[in-house]
Amino acid sequence: MRLQALTAALLAASCASAPVSSEAQTAPVPSMGEILEQSPAGDWRAVNPENTIYMDLPAGRVIIELAPEYAPNHAANIRALARAHYWDGAPIVRSQDNYVVQWGRDEGDTTSYGEAQRSLQPEFDRRRSGVEVTRLQDPDSYAREVGFSDGFPVAGQNGRTWLAHCYGMIGAGRGDTADSGSGAELYVVIGQAPRHLDRNVTLVGRVLQGVELLSVMPRGTGALGFYETPEERTIIRSVRLASELPESERVNLQTLRTDSATFRTLTESRRTRRDPWFLEPTGAINVCNVPLPVRTAP
Amino acid sequence: MRLQALTAALLAASCASAPVSSEAQTAPVPSMGEILEQSPAGDWRAVNPENTIYMDLPAGRVIIELAPEYAPNHAANIRALARAHYWDGAPIVRSQDNYVVQWGRDEGDTTSYGEAQRSLQPEFDRRRSGVEVTRLQDPDSYAREVGFSDGFPVAGQNGRTWLAHCYGMIGAGRGDTADSGSGAELYVVIGQAPRHLDRNVTLVGRVLQGVELLSVMPRGTGALGFYETPEERTIIRSVRLASELPESERVNLQTLRTDSATFRTLTESRRTRRDPWFLEPTGAINVCNVPLPVRTAP
Repeated sequence: MRLQALTAALLAASCASAPVSSEAQTAPVPSMGEILEQSPAGDWRAVNPENTIYMDLPAGRVIIELAPEYAPNHAANIRALARAHYWDGAPIVRSQDNYVVQWGRDEGDTTSYGEAQRSLQPEFDRRRSGVEVTRLQDPDSYAREVGFSDGFPVAGQNGRTWLAHCYGMIGAGRGDTADSGSGAELYVVIGQAPRHLDRNVTLVGRVLQGVELLSVMPRGTGALGFYETPEERTIIRSVRLASELPESERVNLQTLRTDSATFRTLTESRRTRRDPWFLEPTGAINVCNVPLPVRTAP
Repeated sequence: MRLQALTAALLAASCASAPVSSEAQTAPVPSMGEILEQSPAGDWRAVNPENTIYMDLPAGRVIIELAPEYAPNHAANIRALARAHYWDGAPIVRSQDNYVVQWGRDEGDTTSYGEAQRSLQPEFDRRRSGVEVTRLQDPDSYAREVGFSDGFPVAGQNGRTWLAHCYGMIGAGRGDTADSGSGAELYVVIGQAPRHLDRNVTLVGRVLQGVELLSVMPRGTGALGFYETPEERTIIRSVRLASELPESERVNLQTLRTDSATFRTLTESRRTRRDPWFLEPTGAINVCNVPLPVRTAP
């Protein structure tokens, strides 16, 4: 009984409900799954294989979507590094609780960068003008505007817009100067959104599938969660660009368009909870708490 | 070189720096560790053994501090359950990525509750009047006031205050009615703060040490991250109230007082980053991104 009760409780907590008019409040509230099932095909977009990275770990596959609209040069470099098989056999070097998991090659490693650059100019933000953003109306601690652009969480102010460091976002490590990163060293956010990194690091995309393979990496015991011995490291089997694989070997994913009516309905259903379990419907949401649904193409 | 560069980069990102006056900006910026080292003894408070729970897992110990100022009846019930050894041999039943890890006993289990109640009235919030809160000045998506009260993150509005669902906070599962929880089933937040649960679930405390033993639990493959087979579950060795153990077996922890000058300096150093690595100092912080330092009594 007790576990069943809690299952119901956290089911309600984790599933969304659609807003309903006052006269309809006795009707069942559609779940997030139901909202998505009722969505028209045009509310989804196929993920471009040129922007899709397959990172194969011993435990399974992580699929990443690059964001070339925000970081075109980093996306191009990451594609070149994948084509050069740069990360095949590279280690996960770090797992810091409530922060990031990170991978890359050690100092002195001579693996070829292929046609990739060793260093890039930062791509921390871009001009807001001309960028379509589905805005959230609730306040944000870090920026005057937050919302979604082409499937990614974004923030902005003063005529600029940038990707936001939400859970599952992928960033390119850099040194003390702005131009020292290349995309060869990458990290994924696995905790409370470290939004203070916004505009300090170039974000290059987000995990579409398999983030749970990275987030459970045993935390490193060294400073900043770095692993202290080779035995603690997980070795990446391979990293491939989907467009390099035959079509039969690709996973055809779609993401819910963040400029779609379905996404607006979903967001509102998460802002204001109508499920019977919720005693306090909240009526607000943070940009990093809005789900960004992904599905296999039907 | 590359990894060293990234180490420096994320060192800067993860360590705090104190605000400095403009004439002092060439001086080294104190790190979070340095700020804490310079703190007077009176800026720390001992954690009361009556509020301290040791949860021993095969991988090590998790230490939880209860929050009886916010949830007195739940704290009392959890103490009674610990005294009855209720959780000894109980399983971790659920691990849902970017959400919660949860433990408790299955439906039909007959383990004695000892002197604990089977059901409690909710303790979702309390009167704001008379509660000392160290306020944050930056906006929050979910509440008009956020800050810290006696070492815990809090939110509030309309004359009420409540504990906030930040990473590492511990909550008591409940069923569809407000009074169906008892504290026998507990969860810990292991992802982006699910603040929509605020005022919908009674929060009972937070993890002081060892949250990384819970956050890496392999994610369950059932709905909501429930484990589908007994083999997937981790078994809790024991849960004890520190005050029940001989003093020689206790861990004497202290938490930084959130009404102290050191905590204000630390918070400001995280709001506005002065480390050379930061190109954009941010100048704002979310309540769930402020560190709540814990140390062993010197």
